Amino acid sequence: MSRLEGKALVAQGGGPTHVINQSVVGVALEARRHSRIHALYGAVHGVRGIIEEDFLDLTRETTRNLDLVGATPSSGLLSTRDKPDAEYCGRMFEVMKAHDIRFFFYVGGNDSSDTVRIVSEHAKAANYDLRAIHIPKTIDNDLEENDHCPGFGSAARYVANAFTGASLDNRALGGIYIGIVMGRHAGFLTAAAAMANTYDDDGPHLIYLPERAFDTDKFLADVRSVYQKHGCCVIAVSEGISDSSGTPVITKLMGEERDAHGNVQLSGTGALGDLLADTIKEKLGIKRVRADTFGYLQRCLIGSASDVDQAEAREVGEAAVRFAMLGDADGSVAIRRPVPDYRASYDLVPLQNVAGKTRHMPDAFINAAGNHVTPAFRDWCRPLLGSDMPQAHRFRAPAVPKILKA
Amino acid sequence: MSRLEGKALVAQGGGPTHVINQSVVGVALEARRHSRIHALYGAVHGVRGIIEEDFLDLTRETTRNLDLVGATPSSGLLSTRDKPDAEYCGRMFEVMKAHDIRFFFYVGGNDSSDTVRIVSEHAKAANYDLRAIHIPKTIDNDLEENDHCPGFGSAARYVANAFTGASLDNRALGGIYIGIVMGRHAGFLTAAAAMANTYDDDGPHLIYLPERAFDTDKFLADVRSVYQKHGCCVIAVSEGISDSSGTPVITKLMGEERDAHGNVQLSGTGALGDLLADTIKEKLGIKRVRADTFGYLQRCLIGSASDVDQAEAREVGEAAVRFAMLGDADGSVAIRRPVPDYRASYDLVPLQNVAGKTRHMPDAFINAAGNHVTPAFRDWCRPLLGSDMPQAHRFRAPAVPKILKA
Repeated sequence: MSRLEGKALVAQGGGPTHVINQSVVGVALEARRHSRIHALYGAVHGVRGIIEEDFLDLTRETTRNLDLVGATPSSGLLSTRDKPDAEYCGRMFEVMKAHDIRFFFYVGGNDSSDTVRIVSEHAKAANYDLRAIHIPKTIDNDLEENDHCPGFGSAARYVANAFTGASLDNRALGGIYIGIVMGRHAGFLTAAAAMANTYDDDGPHLIYLPERAFDTDKFLADVRSVYQKHGCCVIAVSEGISDSSGTPVITKLMGEERDAHGNVQLSGTGALGDLLADTIKEKLGIKRVRADTFGYLQRCLIGSASDVDQAEAREVGEAAVRFAMLGDADGSVAIRRPVPDYRASYDLVPLQNVAGKTRHMPDAFINAAGNHVTPAFRDWCRPLLGSDMPQAHRFRAPAVPKILKA
Repeated sequence: MSRLEGKALVAQGGGPTHVINQSVVGVALEARRHSRIHALYGAVHGVRGIIEEDFLDLTRETTRNLDLVGATPSSGLLSTRDKPDAEYCGRMFEVMKAHDIRFFFYVGGNDSSDTVRIVSEHAKAANYDLRAIHIPKTIDNDLEENDHCPGFGSAARYVANAFTGASLDNRALGGIYIGIVMGRHAGFLTAAAAMANTYDDDGPHLIYLPERAFDTDKFLADVRSVYQKHGCCVIAVSEGISDSSGTPVITKLMGEERDAHGNVQLSGTGALGDLLADTIKEKLGIKRVRADTFGYLQRCLIGSASDVDQAEAREVGEAAVRFAMLGDADGSVAIRRPVPDYRASYDLVPLQNVAGKTRHMPDAFINAAGNHVTPAFRDWCRPLLGSDMPQAHRFRAPAVPKILKA
């Protein structure tokens, strides 16, 4: 099976990111270098495109158009949240066999890695010769085995820039500003808000992560304290914050809408931000309280990707093809970070180490009070944001001595 | 009074923008060229800083720091929504007299231009020799006499890029996406969503503006029609949409929070988006419906300004000082657009032509169905977005002929 040859298939699953197309482009460009790959097809709408035999012949793409699509956010091959079972896999293998597809590259997060695990296991059981490789992506940065995940750096860059701007805005008119950040179980993206701090009194002043139980009384005490000191307060809150019993705060508001993987809808509503804003108005008596729910723009605002993230997202695609060509095992591409210098490298790890698992913020990244990050988090996050982060500047002019009120 | 000399004062009022600091920088750099301006002070928190004698000596700023602050979003001198009355003006003139301030430059929108009108009239009544000039800014683009307003181009750029990204995202997973855009009475910023269209089937497919009465039944019929055609639908909605009686839809949800100028709070809540999403889910039976309320990032996301907007925001500041030096009238700086080529020029117009007035989208910019824009709007908007708008690209590979489903 080490000299497997035939056509290759690439597809994208789950939520889009700024750079998920770079991984497809990485696969496409690397695939062209290997004669054992007879053609590269792209399945439209993820695994569903396989069932429906809906393929694009990516072998026919020009290199220039691949570069252009690579720089475009969201999933250019479109996506799905379908989760295959035995019968679904059987239908996939029928289609793959008809097209002589022997290499399967699937770009996605936890759920998509679980899809690759399922496909890999069923292919073995069905004696269908297939090399199945998972290519990581997720703005949540919650894949095990990875130092960080493609898609996270660009989303983190957006969140950091958003809080830089929102803090400047909040300073100008005062009051309380709450920004709700994506992240179902892992707080990495919310924590990236901390990268907005330039001056000591810049926001975000408080950061609430799903890794710590959310306590409304403690939250209100924190907000009061910052507001008394600065006359304003900027707060980053993960959409996934949960109470001490593990129930997401938003579930109490929204009821539950679940997808095929059992995930509850957290995004696409302003309810959590509005709840927190109303609570502050009511309990602390502060009048100007504003909540923004950052929503989908965190993962798709065109023109806001991190160049480091772009490069790495392409490299995981290239690496996936090389692992498929040089090795004889299915697996998941993982990003490592050799210390002390920042430089990504790539390994292939067993699918079961990643599939369906969730990585959380390490304790070393969260402060003792559970309401901000540590310097270790900032050091880890900084290189991922890209090479040209905009900086905020203030007037430095001295105050004019008062005459009437001297 | 044409040879008035003394110190000059600059301040910022109302909501911040991406480029409002450029106007202060324009004033500062131009003021240095005129010996009749003995020093330039910046009042902290708008007119309130005058009452409180809270000034920075901007004469002491380095040119380099002015450039850096100019490129930073939000109001570097901080802002206010205070509206002066006779007594307030009297206290302002006492402070101005003590510091020999004879030139007053105020950067702001409708309400701030009204503040300048009030100050100008009270100065004449009090025989206090003062040149008062309003410098336009507003992301809403709703100042009379102006072809467009500084701050609008950058916010419009954000909105256009947001809808480009959101449309790509929505295409990947399907369903309905609603983006709620700022704009109290004028729909220009919401209309800028239309600049996201690259391909014929790109979103936004529907655009709802405050200039047209919002009718829920018509809205649902529009959405159903697009969804049946494309399997997805991207909708831009102004936060200021109102029913046929002129009542903002959001007021029914939120109750009313008003500022000193009588404005109702529209931003900083996700309620309108959630209402529309719930209505679609319930009435059309579509399951995946997501609403994002773009919120404050429209006016402050660092790193997202239009270069054309940056340049013009600086030029209105420069122009204000030149009008004060060369003329002998108070007024408001207005941006004109000589046709056919795009190039901004600047006039000084009477304050009463602008103060407290609201410009709306002209009928020629709105389509007959009242749910999108016209080509005339796109032609008007395009140059304001800046020189380097990112473009979305799609895979162009041909479909693979089906074998099993042939």
